[in-house]
Order: sequence, then structure tokens, then C-alpha cells
Amino acid sequence: MAFPWPEVGTPLGDVITPMPVIDEDRLAANIARAAAYMTAQGLAFRPHIKTHKIPAVARQQLAAGACGINCQKLSEAEVFAEAGFDDILITYNLLGAARLDRLAALNARVRLRVVADSAVTVSGLAGAFDASRPLTVLVECDTGGGRCGVQSPAEAATLARQIAAAPGLRFGGLLTYPAVGGAARVESFLSQTMALLAAEGIDCPVRSNGGSPDLWKAHLVPSATEHRAGTYVYNDRSMVRAGECGRGDLAMHVLATVVSRPTSTRAVLDCGSKTLTSDLLGFADHGEVEEWPGARVVSLSEEHAVVDLAACTGPLPEVGARVRVIPNHTCVVSNLFDRMVFQRGGVVTRVEPVAARGTVW
Amino acid sequence: MAFPWPEVGTPLGDVITPMPVIDEDRLAANIARAAAYMTAQGLAFRPHIKTHKIPAVARQQLAAGACGINCQKLSEAEVFAEAGFDDILITYNLLGAARLDRLAALNARVRLRVVADSAVTVSGLAGAFDASRPLTVLVECDTGGGRCGVQSPAEAATLARQIAAAPGLRFGGLLTYPAVGGAARVESFLSQTMALLAAEGIDCPVRSNGGSPDLWKAHLVPSATEHRAGTYVYNDRSMVRAGECGRGDLAMHVLATVVSRPTSTRAVLDCGSKTLTSDLLGFADHGEVEEWPGARVVSLSEEHAVVDLAACTGPLPEVGARVRVIPNHTCVVSNLFDRMVFQRGGVVTRVEPVAARGTVW
Repeated sequence: MAFPWPEVGTPLGDVITPMPVIDEDRLAANIARAAAYMTAQGLAFRPHIKTHKIPAVARQQLAAGACGINCQKLSEAEVFAEAGFDDILITYNLLGAARLDRLAALNARVRLRVVADSAVTVSGLAGAFDASRPLTVLVECDTGGGRCGVQSPAEAATLARQIAAAPGLRFGGLLTYPAVGGAARVESFLSQTMALLAAEGIDCPVRSNGGSPDLWKAHLVPSATEHRAGTYVYNDRSMVRAGECGRGDLAMHVLATVVSRPTSTRAVLDCGSKTLTSDLLGFADHGEVEEWPGARVVSLSEEHAVVDLAACTGPLPEVGARVRVIPNHTCVVSNLFDRMVFQRGGVVTRVEPVAARGTVW
Repeated sequence: MAFPWPEVGTPLGDVITPMPVIDEDRLAANIARAAAYMTAQGLAFRPHIKTHKIPAVARQQLAAGACGINCQKLSEAEVFAEAGFDDILITYNLLGAARLDRLAALNARVRLRVVADSAVTVSGLAGAFDASRPLTVLVECDTGGGRCGVQSPAEAATLARQIAAAPGLRFGGLLTYPAVGGAARVESFLSQTMALLAAEGIDCPVRSNGGSPDLWKAHLVPSATEHRAGTYVYNDRSMVRAGECGRGDLAMHVLATVVSRPTSTRAVLDCGSKTLTSDLLGFADHGEVEEWPGARVVSLSEEHAVVDLAACTGPLPEVGARVRVIPNHTCVVSNLFDRMVFQRGGVVTRVEPVAARGTVW
């Protein structure tokens, strides 16, 4: 059953809802602004494609000066390699024979780097690669993010040594995805580890820092050589709250329609958790409605959003009214749609396949 | 880039992770148990396909005695009509010319019913159908669920009258999706509305109640003629908490792999919010790990789940270990995967396309 995606030239008012739509001008401005900042700081910039999963958008990022791309899954990297990208960093501990076989095939095609944070991961990689086509591996460091990563510079140095000693691996440097605002801690971790490595004569060419919430603070980590970020390309409500962008930089809105007005203070929209996802990112509610200041998206079911209008002062919305919702988190909205609609001036400019969506591993 | 889905006969230990997997025997038992209960209560049973979106699973539900299917979106109904289903209820206020044109085409193919909760929705439907091929419309009633629905029996009767008066529409009855445990309120709303309609000579053939959390209390609403439920087919952590099923009735697990063990009390799994979703459904954490009693899935990022092992008493997991995660909510996990893997006795039995996933309207 083919879904009739809108054609180029369709006015937004005729685009069926619920539908996330990307503003071309804001997208281009977000890409240009981050690229200019990174260039000014002398940092390589490596956009994370998990936010959009669209090769055409990544091409815009490369055209603006990005050094390559960042993927979170092997399958994402495979899709982007197929689309012609040849400098790919996968920021994930890759394990298991099936993945390692495919990783070797990918390493034969493109300039590839991966990360590891344990001896188990490094041993697996070491067994899958040899000196004829070595794999470059960075050590992932936990600098306060509380997710993956070695816990100390000493651990990082130990793992770097293991990587450097494996014939099929090359030690590529250090990588971190820090907690928001942890510049001093990141710098301390990186510089201490670099000193340990230097004392052993181990080269540490790349120090990769990351995160859209840390984007404009990237210069506060002088030891970093590159920065990675994903969300900045679309931005979202969490980025506005963090002070990292203004409302005029929000490139994604979710078009939605009022499908019910059961009471004087309740409106129901057609964008539920299968459109917006339930990601709260610390918010108490599920997005903002541009047209209704004061409205609160208080709950989501799978295909409905319940909006509390009690604090709204404007005219009350009617069934059939169309609105634009600012999602809490754009990266997960992208992941729900097979295609993404783009617009400029209220008219559809293109409809891009979300090529790396649904790739499982 | 083709994803290598597992073949029939693959042992679960060789299935790549993260991957939701359905237990065939538990699935069949869940379907049979609900069907037997509804038959014993003299209730028609209409499974909601939003949970699985897979025609083959809906065929199992029909084979067990279901009267038809329930869809939440027009596009889901189109996919299932294409797959041969001919008794479809869409529990959604459908609005707008594009949708109404397709709804008319669908009504010409199958036995179709929809709902409305406002004069605006009814007027739209009335304008799109005529007496040559009328559309059957039920009035959606809010019996405490706080989502869509008319607010009182008087409002329901008024809307029923509007439907009955439209040449292209047939009044089909009443429908509700109640808050959990609201049997008395549902019964009161339905019986009061039926009395109002009877006094005006308006027939009210169907009274459709719904919800998996209310499944085994369906008999507490004597005025209902049918019950709708979705989640019961797979079950999930929320259903166990509600006392609606036991752990032995959980048909979906998410296979996951430990990809990092950064500290003695932290494990990181490869199932993040792009696998489990962020649906909490009232829980404080993101699922349970079968193999690790006491472990808490404390946070999700897009491709990682951070697990706190502090309260675990068993042996500590190692990088590379595989576990089974019980998701908070199965319906939203289904919606993230293009195919669903089924197993019996630890061996893959089939891989079904999630045919209605990604259909936007």
C-alpha cells in the first residue's frame, strides 16, 4: 500500500498530518553556523548522522566543511558508505562474529574508525583484522556522561597499549561523549591520558569530543582535535532550553491537526507517541504548540496528543485546525518516518528517504 | 543495503541484537485465552492491530474467533484491507478531503466503521458519503479516559441524531476507551445513552468497550456488545504490573547484548530508545532484564541502555553476554521494526513484515 507522500510544490496546508517537516533555510543556517564556529576554533567537525539518517543532508554538512561523518550503528555506516561517504567514525563498541565480518568488509571500502572501551571489545576487533588492512580504533572515555567509556586516564592508556600492540589494529586516539557542560573534566581526562601515552611513545592523533549541547563550548577543550554533534542540524525544544539555539533556529516542526475538542480546556492532536516519541529529556510534557502559547501537551497515547488549554489566552482552537508542534527531541522523530518532507516558504521542496532508518544492527 | 534478517531455523543465540522476538506458544496462548473468555461472556472480540501491525498475527486472532479487527489509522486499515481483512473498525476521528476520499474508496471494499465525537467530524463524513454506499459511524464517548469522546449521554444522543439524519451515514452505536478499571462508569454512560436513544427510536446496535488493562473485566459492562484490545496479544511489563497477565504470558522479549561494563555496578546494553522507546507507562525505569533480578534499566540514550546492577545478587555480567529485556510497552517497540522475528523453543520460526508500520496517515 503506497503512501502518497506530498509532491514538490505542495503547499504545507495540503500536507497530510501528522508530518515532521524540515525548514530548508533554517537547516542550511544551522549547518553553516556550526561549520563557521568549528573552522574559527580550528576544530575538525564530524556531524552525527543519527539525527537525520539522510545522505543528502550529510552531503550538505560535508559541503560546509565537515571532515567526515559519525554513525552510531554499523548498519548506518553501511548505508552511508553505499551512498558514497568515505570517512566514517562509528562511536560504538562492536561485538560478535556477524558484525565483525561486515565491519571488515566496510573497512576495505572506506576510511573507517571505531571505538572500544574494554579489553573484550579490543580482543574481538583484533581477531577480525590483520596488518594487510588494519582497523583504526579510538578509546572511548567516560568523562561524566555515565554511559560507556573507560573510567580513568590510566585505564585509557592501558587499552590504548592493547590496541597499539595488535597487528590488525591502529590506535587512533581518544573519544568522549560528555555530560553537558563538562569541559574542564573532558580537558583534564584527555590531557592526562595524552601525557601517559606520550611518556610511552604512543601517538594519539585524534581527540574527539562530542554533543550538540556542548557545541558552542567546544573551544573550552583545547586538547580536542575534533567535535561531533547531531541534533544541532535540526535543533529541538531541548536545545532551546539549553540555550544552544533560539526558536528561530528550529528546523523541524511536526504538522498536526486538532481531531477532537472534548472540553473547553482540552484539545486532542493527531501526533501521539508514534510520531513524537515519549522522549521527555527532562521536560514534564511532550512538546510545544507554536500557535498556542501556554498550552501544555500533557499526555500522549500512540496516535493522540492531549493538550491542556487552561492557561491559553488566545482564541480557542477548533476541530480541523492545523498547528506546528516543536518536538522535545528531533533525533527520535526522524527515526519513526520512512521519508522526511522539506519546505521553504510554506512549499514542499523535496521528500528524502530516511535511508538509514530501520537498519537494525 | 539489505539487512540480513535471521532465517527460519536460526538459533536465538545467533540472532543479531538488539532484536524483539515473539514466543509463538505464548502468542497462541494469549490469543486463545482472550478468545475463550470473550466467548464465555457472550462478547464479540475485536483485536486492535496497532500492537503488532502484522496481517499473519491478525489472521491467528480471527481464526480464534475474533469478529473483525480494530485499526487506529486509515493507512493501517488500507494495509489490512489489501491483506484480505473485510471487517474493520477505525477508532479515530477522520478529517480532511484527502483522508475522506480514501475512506470512501475503502468503504466500497470492506465492511467499515469509524467513530466521531464532534459535529465537525460528522459533517465532514456526511459530505463524503451518500446513500448508495453509506458509512457506519459510532459515537466515541469519554468515560474517564480523558482523551477523545463526547462528555455526556446527552451529547452522545445529540451526535447520534446528527449521524442518523445524514443520508450518507448510518448510526452504528457507541464506543469508548475507558480509564483503567472504570467499568461502572462505562456501564452508566452506555446505559443512559441507550435509554435516551431508545426514547427517540434510534437503534444502537453496537456498544464497543476497549482496553487490554480492562480485558478480564469486560463482563462488568453488561451493556457492551464487543470488546477491543491490542496489547494482550504480546503482553508487556505494564500488563504484568496491572495483574492482567503473568510473566509466563510475556510473548515479546527484546534480545540485547552487553556492550560495555564501565564500572562494577554499571552495564550498558545495545537496546536504547530507538529499540525500547521511552514509554514509561508510570514506571520509573525502562524495562526489566530477565537474567538479572534487581537490575534497573535507569536510562536510555538512542542506542544504549544503562543498567544499574547495584542491587543484583547473582554473578556479574560480562561484555558480550546476551540477555532478554521485558519492555514496558510492546506496541511501540513493534512500531520501530520493519520485521518481527518469531521463535519456538529457541529457534526462529518465521520473520513477518510489520506491514502497517511506517504508514503515516
